[in-house]
Amino acid sequence: MNKTTVIVGGVAGGASCAARLRRNDEHARIIVLERGPHVSFANCGLPYYVSGIIANEEDLLLATPEFFKERFNIDVRTGHNVTGIDRANKSVQITRLDGSQEQLSYDHLVLSPGALPLIPPLPGIDLPGIFSLRTVPDSNQIKQWIKRHDVRHAVVVGGGFIGLEVAENLHHLEIGVTLIQRDPQIMTTIDPEMVQPMTNAVRAAGIDLRLNTEVSRIDRDAASGRLGPLQVTLSNGQQLLTDMLILAIGVRPDSALAQSCGLEVSPRGHIVVDSRMQTSDPDIFAVGDAVEVSCAITGKRTALPLAGPANRQGRLVADIITGKRRGFRGVQGTAVCGAFGLTLASTGLNERTLRGHKIPHETIYIHPRNHVGYYPGAKTINMKLLYDTSNGRVLGAQAIGEDGVERRIDVIAMAIQMGATVFDLEEAELCYAPQYGAAKDPVNLAGMVAANAMRGDLPITHWNEIGCQTALVLDVRTAGELQQDPMPCGKHIPIDELRARLGELSKDKPIQVVCGVGIRAYNAICMLRQEGFQASLLSGGVSTWMHLDPAPTSG
Amino acid sequence: MNKTTVIVGGVAGGASCAARLRRNDEHARIIVLERGPHVSFANCGLPYYVSGIIANEEDLLLATPEFFKERFNIDVRTGHNVTGIDRANKSVQITRLDGSQEQLSYDHLVLSPGALPLIPPLPGIDLPGIFSLRTVPDSNQIKQWIKRHDVRHAVVVGGGFIGLEVAENLHHLEIGVTLIQRDPQIMTTIDPEMVQPMTNAVRAAGIDLRLNTEVSRIDRDAASGRLGPLQVTLSNGQQLLTDMLILAIGVRPDSALAQSCGLEVSPRGHIVVDSRMQTSDPDIFAVGDAVEVSCAITGKRTALPLAGPANRQGRLVADIITGKRRGFRGVQGTAVCGAFGLTLASTGLNERTLRGHKIPHETIYIHPRNHVGYYPGAKTINMKLLYDTSNGRVLGAQAIGEDGVERRIDVIAMAIQMGATVFDLEEAELCYAPQYGAAKDPVNLAGMVAANAMRGDLPITHWNEIGCQTALVLDVRTAGELQQDPMPCGKHIPIDELRARLGELSKDKPIQVVCGVGIRAYNAICMLRQEGFQASLLSGGVSTWMHLDPAPTSG
Repeated sequence: MNKTTVIVGGVAGGASCAARLRRNDEHARIIVLERGPHVSFANCGLPYYVSGIIANEEDLLLATPEFFKERFNIDVRTGHNVTGIDRANKSVQITRLDGSQEQLSYDHLVLSPGALPLIPPLPGIDLPGIFSLRTVPDSNQIKQWIKRHDVRHAVVVGGGFIGLEVAENLHHLEIGVTLIQRDPQIMTTIDPEMVQPMTNAVRAAGIDLRLNTEVSRIDRDAASGRLGPLQVTLSNGQQLLTDMLILAIGVRPDSALAQSCGLEVSPRGHIVVDSRMQTSDPDIFAVGDAVEVSCAITGKRTALPLAGPANRQGRLVADIITGKRRGFRGVQGTAVCGAFGLTLASTGLNERTLRGHKIPHETIYIHPRNHVGYYPGAKTINMKLLYDTSNGRVLGAQAIGEDGVERRIDVIAMAIQMGATVFDLEEAELCYAPQYGAAKDPVNLAGMVAANAMRGDLPITHWNEIGCQTALVLDVRTAGELQQDPMPCGKHIPIDELRARLGELSKDKPIQVVCGVGIRAYNAICMLRQEGFQASLLSGGVSTWMHLDPAPTSG
Repeated sequence: MNKTTVIVGGVAGGASCAARLRRNDEHARIIVLERGPHVSFANCGLPYYVSGIIANEEDLLLATPEFFKERFNIDVRTGHNVTGIDRANKSVQITRLDGSQEQLSYDHLVLSPGALPLIPPLPGIDLPGIFSLRTVPDSNQIKQWIKRHDVRHAVVVGGGFIGLEVAENLHHLEIGVTLIQRDPQIMTTIDPEMVQPMTNAVRAAGIDLRLNTEVSRIDRDAASGRLGPLQVTLSNGQQLLTDMLILAIGVRPDSALAQSCGLEVSPRGHIVVDSRMQTSDPDIFAVGDAVEVSCAITGKRTALPLAGPANRQGRLVADIITGKRRGFRGVQGTAVCGAFGLTLASTGLNERTLRGHKIPHETIYIHPRNHVGYYPGAKTINMKLLYDTSNGRVLGAQAIGEDGVERRIDVIAMAIQMGATVFDLEEAELCYAPQYGAAKDPVNLAGMVAANAMRGDLPITHWNEIGCQTALVLDVRTAGELQQDPMPCGKHIPIDELRARLGELSKDKPIQVVCGVGIRAYNAICMLRQEGFQASLLSGGVSTWMHLDPAPTSG
């Protein structure tokens, strides 16, 4: 009578599934099999444990097998590696640490194997002093190496969220860091111009950031023996000596087990599931970093190895097994990273993805403060909003700044989830007091600019579209601002003189208007268009231009 | 040909309307008439200017008449009091500061008169040293009085948002404060149990908070002459001496002008407008603190004197006059107040309003951290979620804590705007990294608890419903917790012993389960109900109980 659910993998998705399953069914037999020594550990905290910001290993262990037994009557077995699945007989093959084996029958099987760090097959990749960071033992090894070898310099390979967090935490330990990134930018899930302030902050902190290159080989420095420094050779021919190297170039789904028993797996190696998280075998579910799910915005298949979706998927599978719920709504890709004094967050689709899917879209930039400027301590938030030009639906947002960033992205994440348009953002009623925001919150401002564009009142051009011959770039800033932040332009008329100097402009040539952030330019455009000029906004003003790399120049 | 729009009142709503109108119509004649000396000043900043946190008067002046002229070609006339409206001839009667008069014709008239501080007609209310705080001159008078009279003690009358901000800023100046509040709680737009942490913080800061009483008369202390202390007599018979008194008991709509020309005004004195912000005269619009608008949730008429809606209404009227837009979606009552180290924020309807409108609803409480507990510096957010039990639609939320409060309320504000249900909150995909939140964000948690209740898995009882005779209160905390935060209960079984000790409980009597915040109780309830017990959650656990005043006791 009592069904047995076997869960393979006891971290985010697996642990959530197990606990929820017990709440849903007091009498189910629930067995969690975890290959590693820990279940339910906080892998998002590992970089901070390396630096000691999170002081104790125990802080990372959110729940022990004993806790699962006492609280939930769940049988958690660590050091249990599932090496095979017999789908016909509905059983799993387990190999224990000591090599002994065991068969275990299931009614439902939940795969939550997670992901494995990508390890490039490079010469020297197995040398001592080379690490990845995915588990508590990984981080303990890194900590020990730092201590034992008095590490002064480290190479971090990979400039994504984890690579950046690792770099920041090593920097916190006063270890010199060289950060190697294959792409022309760090944090490639974010559009390049929105990453630029972070790139600047990374470099300002003294991190030796090398873009457009990758590690091609690693050698032990011949002169200094086994425990001497590593010599790292880059694809651009540069060489550098370092005390350790941490790989953070990404993860791959740990789907070998699923593949070995014939479950459908995507070309990129993710386990294929439907909206019920069911694999191609209806008795087997899969959740977390190893699966491919649907994008809530495009409906297309995607993978998003993040803890939040993993937890909700695990919980959902428990509900589906016990007949309580429907399906997973998909992911929309909300993420945040804090490093070097900045918060960078995003939700929805980025511009590259929108282009790839050929979704008609427009982009606007704003650079408001996190709260009213007259209250002390206001900080700029650089924000980008992407929306569907056919109906105004919000498709994505990215923001970077010192304070208040994740709040605005969370609001837009909820807006996207609910299918909101830019007109809804325009009308949002959000918290305002001088310390907390503005009567027109950054979310409102983004909506207002986009709604103005949607209504046809604010044609938008972009910096990569500025025309040297075909259009005139009109700068409406003050002379002082021009001097401080020079920007090549065809014509300069301060906004407050424009009304009187319209005669200096031609109606025959498009005018692309620029100011600091876009507000004065917007006023200028309204005036110009009503007077018969063809005027458009250089979106985001000089503030956006300064984040472009390399910033284009105008004729 | 060129239409003339006259705008009466040049602060939030009026100023927004004027600027937007110019952008929409370069050739319109736009005249702003402001009775006071300033337009577009930051009245939300006034309490912080009193304390010097905002250092300079100029910081509060967001725009001058000269700016409006130069940037927008808008004719702003300060010191111009509109004393009459001739609707038949579409003109306004102006009386200038020097007593001279003038008629001005309009095509459209926009009333943005704002609100006036409530001044109770008490004996002694006109004595020197008694102030209200609504304008820049008000705050300068307060600052001068504090300096000249070396103020050591002040009475603040009114414990709403402004009263609390004033008390906090006087406290910042090391002035002793007695805060008088007529009601049994401060901040009456918030439900009492959610205000309790703020009440505690106010008192912990040394503020002499007196609830349930009001000022009945004010006298100049006879012994010390004209500039001696004020003697304040309270309705409860208490007397106290103070150096000054600031009134912050609320505002009333400044609708005398609208009334005098026969525009429809509500019983409470607000100008009645439709969703286009049109008054009963189609050529006259009204915006801001003086109007009554519709509640976006109930559709009923309401007033919400806040800067955000005023700005958006002003902007909307400009669009309506120029034929660009439809109507105002109404207000939902999002607000935030920061004082004494806490942030208190809310959106949507509170419990009292829901009861008044007889809307079927349920309430849940959660007490999560602002970010994962294993990252240093986590702070508790006390959160309350109100939702429609007929369909799960989110109706309101309130939260209080040291950090991350306004972010969660903003997300729920957007959810309410879009008609989201608790099931949508459950599935929200929000920013998570250890410094920023949790894989299950507080917004998710609130949705999960409510969704569990909606699905029938988590019956909820409230602290005012605990039954001494008819039900058993079961405390599932540890013995140590009971000792530290004792709570009267009928039975104590720690959660991890419950499975083995079910025999000690009766299936005949409802069991109300309590723990620290509700998580362990939820697990206990799942177990108990599947074993045939009638179990429900005492919502919010002991953490909510401790915020009830007076906390009820159980039998």
